[in-house]
Amino acid sequence: MADQAKPKKQLHLAAFMRPVSLHSGAWRYPGAYPDANFNLSHLKSFIQKLEAAKFDAFFMADHLAVLNMPVEALKRSHTVTSFEPFTLLSALSQVTTHIGLAATASTTYDEPYHVARRFASLDHLSGGRAAWNIVTTGNPETALNFSLDEHVEHAERYKRAREFYDVVTGLWDSFADDAFMRDQETGVFFDPGRLHTLNHKGENFKVKGPLNIARPVQGWPVIVQAGQSEPGKQLAAETAEAVFCAPRDLESAKALYADIKGRVEAAGRKREHLKLLPAVFIVVGDTVEDAKEKRLKVDSLVHHETAIASLSVALGQDASKFDPDSPLPDLDILDTNASKTGRAGVIKLAKEEWLTVRQLAGRYGGYSGLSFVGTPETIADEMATWLEEEAADGFTVVSPFLPEGLDAITDKLVPELQRRGLFRKEYKGTTLREHLGLPRPKNRFFE
Amino acid sequence: MADQAKPKKQLHLAAFMRPVSLHSGAWRYPGAYPDANFNLSHLKSFIQKLEAAKFDAFFMADHLAVLNMPVEALKRSHTVTSFEPFTLLSALSQVTTHIGLAATASTTYDEPYHVARRFASLDHLSGGRAAWNIVTTGNPETALNFSLDEHVEHAERYKRAREFYDVVTGLWDSFADDAFMRDQETGVFFDPGRLHTLNHKGENFKVKGPLNIARPVQGWPVIVQAGQSEPGKQLAAETAEAVFCAPRDLESAKALYADIKGRVEAAGRKREHLKLLPAVFIVVGDTVEDAKEKRLKVDSLVHHETAIASLSVALGQDASKFDPDSPLPDLDILDTNASKTGRAGVIKLAKEEWLTVRQLAGRYGGYSGLSFVGTPETIADEMATWLEEEAADGFTVVSPFLPEGLDAITDKLVPELQRRGLFRKEYKGTTLREHLGLPRPKNRFFE
Ligand SMILES: Cc1cc2nc3c(=O)[nH]c(=O)nc-3n(C[C@H](O)[C@H](O)[C@H](O)COP(=O)(O)O)c2cc1C
Ligand SMILES: Cc1cc2nc3c(=O)[nH]c(=O)nc-3n(C[C@H](O)[C@H](O)[C@H](O)COP(=O)(O)O)c2cc1C
Repeated sequence: MADQAKPKKQLHLAAFMRPVSLHSGAWRYPGAYPDANFNLSHLKSFIQKLEAAKFDAFFMADHLAVLNMPVEALKRSHTVTSFEPFTLLSALSQVTTHIGLAATASTTYDEPYHVARRFASLDHLSGGRAAWNIVTTGNPETALNFSLDEHVEHAERYKRAREFYDVVTGLWDSFADDAFMRDQETGVFFDPGRLHTLNHKGENFKVKGPLNIARPVQGWPVIVQAGQSEPGKQLAAETAEAVFCAPRDLESAKALYADIKGRVEAAGRKREHLKLLPAVFIVVGDTVEDAKEKRLKVDSLVHHETAIASLSVALGQDASKFDPDSPLPDLDILDTNASKTGRAGVIKLAKEEWLTVRQLAGRYGGYSGLSFVGTPETIADEMATWLEEEAADGFTVVSPFLPEGLDAITDKLVPELQRRGLFRKEYKGTTLREHLGLPRPKNRFFE
Repeated sequence: MADQAKPKKQLHLAAFMRPVSLHSGAWRYPGAYPDANFNLSHLKSFIQKLEAAKFDAFFMADHLAVLNMPVEALKRSHTVTSFEPFTLLSALSQVTTHIGLAATASTTYDEPYHVARRFASLDHLSGGRAAWNIVTTGNPETALNFSLDEHVEHAERYKRAREFYDVVTGLWDSFADDAFMRDQETGVFFDPGRLHTLNHKGENFKVKGPLNIARPVQGWPVIVQAGQSEPGKQLAAETAEAVFCAPRDLESAKALYADIKGRVEAAGRKREHLKLLPAVFIVVGDTVEDAKEKRLKVDSLVHHETAIASLSVALGQDASKFDPDSPLPDLDILDTNASKTGRAGVIKLAKEEWLTVRQLAGRYGGYSGLSFVGTPETIADEMATWLEEEAADGFTVVSPFLPEGLDAITDKLVPELQRRGLFRKEYKGTTLREHLGLPRPKNRFFE
C-alpha cells in the first residue's frame, strides 16, 4: 500500500543529438553512418526510435562557429556541418508526436525578441514540446562571426543572460492564454485588455513588445541551463527547470546535486522543479567485456595525432614522446603544467583499465567525460544508484556511434529500465512539461 | 515547328501566405477559418493544395513587431499572431516535396551569420527549395524591440543590406560542393583545401567564417527583393532573382518592368535571371458579377471605423463626414492634403465601380492594391496580357479569404491557365531554381 501511495521515482532521459555523438571517432565505427549528423532521413529515424523508447527529449546543442581547432584536427571532425536547431527541430516536429524538442540558443549572440519568438513558434508547431537551453557561448571564435573583435567577458555574459531570460519570459506572457476570441460576428479578433506591452528597459536591452505570437502551449517552453561555473550554477538555480551538467563521477555529481538543489530552494523555488540531467556516454554490450571492447574500438578510431594532442593537454606535457604501445610511465615524479586533479585522473584511468598510451590518447581525443559501459543490467544498476543517491534526476545520453550504439540504448537498456520501473513505458501526457513533471508557469501579467 | 522550337512563355506563381490573406476582413468571410493564419493543420492543407496546383513557391512575409496601428484597429486584425517563418517553413518542408519555401529575413535587425545559416539549413532540409526575401524593414516600431531608440535611416538600411548580402552569399560559399568525402578508412571528413574562410571586414560587418554548414543544395537559396524605392530597385537589380512588387495597374507595371530589367542589364546580368512577380489580390467567381459581389462582401466585413480611417488617409480629408450610403461627393473642388494621384485614384475607382462611401472605405480598409476579380477566363486573359506585354513574369498571389478563395484559385483559375499553356502541369525539377528557370550560382571561391 505504501508502494502504491508513493510511486517509485523514475529517471528522465534526454538524448544529446548535436552532434549525434560527441565522440570524434564515432563516424568511422564499422557500420556507422558517416553522415549521421547531417542526414535528415537518418535523424528522422533516430528521433523516431527515441520516441518509441519514450525519451523525454531530443536535444540539439548549438555553436555559432566551426569548432575552434587546428585544421589538421578539424578536417577529421564530423561536427563541421550540422543543421541549425530551429529548422531541424521544426522539421522533426512533423514526424513525431510526443518527444520533447530542446535547442540551445545563445544569450550573447542573439536578440531576445528573436529567441522568444522562435521558441514560441516551435512550441506551437510541436503542440507544447519545446525547450530552450540557455547558453552564454564559450567559444571565443564566435565573436569574430558577429562583428566583434573579442569575446564578451564571462561575468558580463552571465549578467546579460539573466536579463535576456527576463525579457524572453516577459515577451512570452504578452498575450493571456485566452486573449484570442476570433469572433467573426463582432469582428473582434482578440481582447486588447488581455495584451500586455512589456516596455522592458534594462542594462543590456530595451524591448518594447508585445511579441507577435500567442502565448506558447506550455506557457513557457521548458528552460534548460548548462553552465558549470559559479554564475552558471546560480543562473540555473534561479531560472532552469532542467540542467545539463558534466560531473566526472558519482561523488562529484552528488555534491553538485546538493549544491544546485540547495540554491534552488534558496531562490524560493521547489527542489523538484529543477531536474539535474548529467551527460553520460553510454556503450551497451552483450557482456561487460564486449562493451569495453566496443569502447576501445571507437577510441582507436580517433586519429593518433589528434588523440595525442588531447592527452598532452590532460597531462600537461608532450605525450608523443612516450611509446604509444606501452603503459603510461610513472609520472608522479615529473613536473607538469596540468592541474593535479586532472593529471591524477589520467593516471588513475590508465591503471584501472590497463590502457596503453595509444588507448589512453584515444580516450582523451574521443570522449573523456562520464561514461557507463557495460550490459543493460550493469548500466541500469548504475543509473538506479545515481537516482537513489541523489546524484541525478536522469541523464543526457550521448550515443557512442550510430545507428548501432543508439539502437542498443533504445532496444536493450531502456527495456531493462522499464522492467525495473525506473523509466516510463508510455507517455502520460503530450507536452515536455508533462514528461518532466514540471508545472505550467502562470502568466505574470494575467490571471 | 516554330512553336515547338520556342516554347511558350509561362507564368510563375508564388502564394503570399503570411498573413494568409492581406485583406483585413478575410477572417470574417462566411465559411472562412478565423484562425487560418495560425493553425498548422490549415496551413498544411493550403500548401498541399498550392503544391498540387504546381505553384512555384509559398511565401511567408515577416515582421518583427506587431503591426503599428491603434489598438482599436489592431484588435480586429488576424495578423497579430503568426508563426515565425523558419519554424513554419521547416515544418511544412516535411509535408511537401516540390513547392518553393520563401521567407523574409531582415538585414536591419538580424545578423548575416544567423541568416546565412538558417537559409542554408532550410535549403538542405527541403532538398533545395528555399528563397530569401531580403527586406530592410519598414515598420519603425521594430527598432523598439531591438534595443534601439530609433529606426535605422532608409539609406543606411540599404547600404547595410547590400553588405549583408555579400556576407551571406560569401558564407554560403564556405565549402566547395564536393568538400565532404567522409572517408571512414582514412578518417578524413572533409578536404580543408575545399574550405574557405571569408574574413569579411566591411563598413557594417566583420565576419570571419566559415559557416558551420555545407553549401546549400541550390548553391545559394533564391534571392528575392521587395523594396520599392530607388535604392530598393537598385538592390534588386544587383542581387535579386525574383522581385515581389506592387504596381497599381498594367501601365505602371510595364514601366517598372522596363526599369528593373534595364537596371539588371546595366548591372551586367541577364534579364531573364530576374523574375518580376507583382502582388495581386485575386477573387474568382462563376461570373464576373459573382466575383465582384464576393469582393464587395469581404470589403463589407472590414470594421467601418477602421475602413473610414483608411479612406480618409487616401483622400487626405475626414471621410466620416460623408453619408456612408451615398456616392462620394464631387471632391475636385475641395482642398485636401492627399497627393493628387492618390486622390484621383479614389475618385476614379468610386465612379468606375459605382461605390458608396461605405463600400469605398471597405476597399481601402481591406486591400486596395492591384486586383484581378472575375471568372477564371477573364483573369487568365489579364494574366496573359501582363505576361505578353512585359508587365510581369508571373504573380505573387494574395488570396481573398480561406479556404474558399484559395480553392477557387487552385481548382478553377490554375486549370484554365494550364489549358492555355500559360502554366506548368507538372514540376520539371525538384528545386525552386529549377521551377523559376534560374541558374545555380557558381561558388565564388572554388571551381
Ligand atoms: C551537456 C552540456 C551541453 C552543453 N551544450 C552547449 C551548447 O549547445 N552550446 C554551447 O555553446 N555550450 C554548451 N555547453 C557549455 C555550457 O553552456 C557552458 O558554457 C560550459 O559548461 C562552461 O560553463 P560556464 O559557461 O558557466 O563557464 C554545454 C555543456 C554541457 C555540460
Ligand atoms: C509583395 C511584397 C512583399 C513584402 N514583404 C515584406 C515583408 O515580408 N517584410 C517587410 O518588412 N517588408 C515587406 N515588404 C516591404 C518592402 O520590403 C519594402 O520595405 C517596401 O516595399 C518599401 O520599399 P523601400 O523599403 O524600398 O522603401 C513587401 C513588399 C511587397 C511589395
